Amino acid sequence: MSAATAWTQMPAAQLDKSAARAAEARQANLTKPAGALGRLEEAANRLAAMQGSKRPRVDSVAIVIFAADHGVAAEGVSAFPQVVTSEMIKNFSRGGAAINVLARELGAQLEVINMGTLSVLEPLDGVRSVQLGLGSANFCQQAAMDKQQLATALLTGKEAVERAKLEGVELFIAGEMGIGNTTSAAALACALLAALPEHLVGLGTGVDPLGLVRKVSVVRRALARHSQHLSDPLEVLRRLGGFEIAALTGSYIACAQMAVPVLVDGFISSVAALVATRLCPGIERWLLFSHSSAEFGHRRVLKELQARPFLDLGMRLGEGSGAAVTVPLLRMACSLHNQMASFDEVSVSEKSR
Amino acid sequence: MSAATAWTQMPAAQLDKSAARAAEARQANLTKPAGALGRLEEAANRLAAMQGSKRPRVDSVAIVIFAADHGVAAEGVSAFPQVVTSEMIKNFSRGGAAINVLARELGAQLEVINMGTLSVLEPLDGVRSVQLGLGSANFCQQAAMDKQQLATALLTGKEAVERAKLEGVELFIAGEMGIGNTTSAAALACALLAALPEHLVGLGTGVDPLGLVRKVSVVRRALARHSQHLSDPLEVLRRLGGFEIAALTGSYIACAQMAVPVLVDGFISSVAALVATRLCPGIERWLLFSHSSAEFGHRRVLKELQARPFLDLGMRLGEGSGAAVTVPLLRMACSLHNQMASFDEVSVSEKSR
Repeated sequence: MSAATAWTQMPAAQLDKSAARAAEARQANLTKPAGALGRLEEAANRLAAMQGSKRPRVDSVAIVIFAADHGVAAEGVSAFPQVVTSEMIKNFSRGGAAINVLARELGAQLEVINMGTLSVLEPLDGVRSVQLGLGSANFCQQAAMDKQQLATALLTGKEAVERAKLEGVELFIAGEMGIGNTTSAAALACALLAALPEHLVGLGTGVDPLGLVRKVSVVRRALARHSQHLSDPLEVLRRLGGFEIAALTGSYIACAQMAVPVLVDGFISSVAALVATRLCPGIERWLLFSHSSAEFGHRRVLKELQARPFLDLGMRLGEGSGAAVTVPLLRMACSLHNQMASFDEVSVSEKSR
Repeated sequence: MSAATAWTQMPAAQLDKSAARAAEARQANLTKPAGALGRLEEAANRLAAMQGSKRPRVDSVAIVIFAADHGVAAEGVSAFPQVVTSEMIKNFSRGGAAINVLARELGAQLEVINMGTLSVLEPLDGVRSVQLGLGSANFCQQAAMDKQQLATALLTGKEAVERAKLEGVELFIAGEMGIGNTTSAAALACALLAALPEHLVGLGTGVDPLGLVRKVSVVRRALARHSQHLSDPLEVLRRLGGFEIAALTGSYIACAQMAVPVLVDGFISSVAALVATRLCPGIERWLLFSHSSAEFGHRRVLKELQARPFLDLGMRLGEGSGAAVTVPLLRMACSLHNQMASFDEVSVSEKSR
């Protein structure tokens, strides 16, 4: 590991166990049968432990979209032409994409970071440009990134979290956009889980059956090409990842190190989380999982992460959209926790003994 | 069927098929892969069909809590003493219960209707009193309600919807509170589904194993006592229901007749919805189902209703809380539907052919 990436192995922050215990005690005393709010209680208690507060909050939410092109798109692995990455970055800038609508609805700050598109874009409102290259390289032929690109991508994720932390953000969501990135995510997951492509490759934005067969074959070829270099997770990320996936990975690690709660989105984000846990064990205590997506490989990755997402709505859009949709649940979990009357405060009889 | 309840068999309103088609066409043209928003697309399309609008909304939400005591509580079927029904009505009035917090969070109007508690309560802020009796009768010994009580309970539900309709409410949520009401709901479901108590009786607010055995035995005795009178759903409701369950039933039927979309809560609400569909076939097209609760019998009832709830968070509180928690999802579904850019409006390439 080079000096430029050594920070990724610094330990994750600890949770506040006394805040966790206080939150659990409060939950047990609220005017409801114990446990009757189900996973909303768990969410509030976990946020309390992360925030070191008896009264957790997720009012202030940062959403950062990392976008990038993928050389592997040249293999014909996506239902959409590669130019859609750039077109969607422009759509983000104009406020017309799903995540724009959701961020407005949530009052969340939204930052878009162009990590490297196939053609360099003119400056766009609300889009930060970190052009690491004209997309990553085709990992069927060579490593997706060089060492410098990988280090800068990871650091870009970290810096986004540092900005959010400065603004006192209570929850961090990373999203992604990049034609070809379910293929990259599937390849990463196969390498880290020693799994077959057939178990992790899915339809992405909606390839047809022939496209799916091609996608499986592309991942198989990539795994074969890089097979001698798949024992180090950082090297796996460099060879099979993409700029935006590396940035997501860096952002999750930084959140865990800086004690910022994370709400993970779908398949690609979860694979980035998987890479992050391999680089920096212990970060998983800072990760909340939002939803189980319709992308085929997601459940396998969630299982490996021992993650229990809150939602299962058949979403498969990316952009952090599944995480954004989950934010109101966390907010209501906090409001219930903080605002309900307790048995101590009002005269409601407790459970018969 | 008496004249007083004949309204329950008037037909449900029709959905607007052209609005549904327009909504589906719009979904297909938004800047995302078709179907990528999963069940959020389905929610927006269904609301569009109910509201007869290409741009559905659920900004204005009414939550009505029907509360009542149950004579069957005397059989020792609840983990909580029966006085908790009255205590929780007071808690609703003071704003300390879960549903108060959620209604505030949603900006929803909240109405509490006391349908009949064991002791008559003093007037309470925000609580409408319709004291049909000192709780329903113990249905192990006699019918839970007389015909007049049943008719008035159904009508109370209808009148709540009429008030909501006058205020232009876009979504109606009914909730319930009543110690003993999971026993009543299980008995109703057994009668309507010809199922065994073992398949529908659950822990409710949290009875111990002995309590569960007692609950099963109570439902079995009730079904045996009323076995000659279980072919007519209205008579089933009168004999085995409760004031608040009848009011819920009436409210669902009235919503369907008055074209007000309904978001159904958990086990007891779903059983009321089941009774309503038996009284007034066709109402199911006006019902959205919010969550799958932790109460054991809920899944069986949902299956019978061919319902696919949006959430599964292990909640089991009642009060309409699971439905309230689902409202932000519906709101985001509408916002995405109404506010996202379409392929026509911006230059984003569509799927390759």
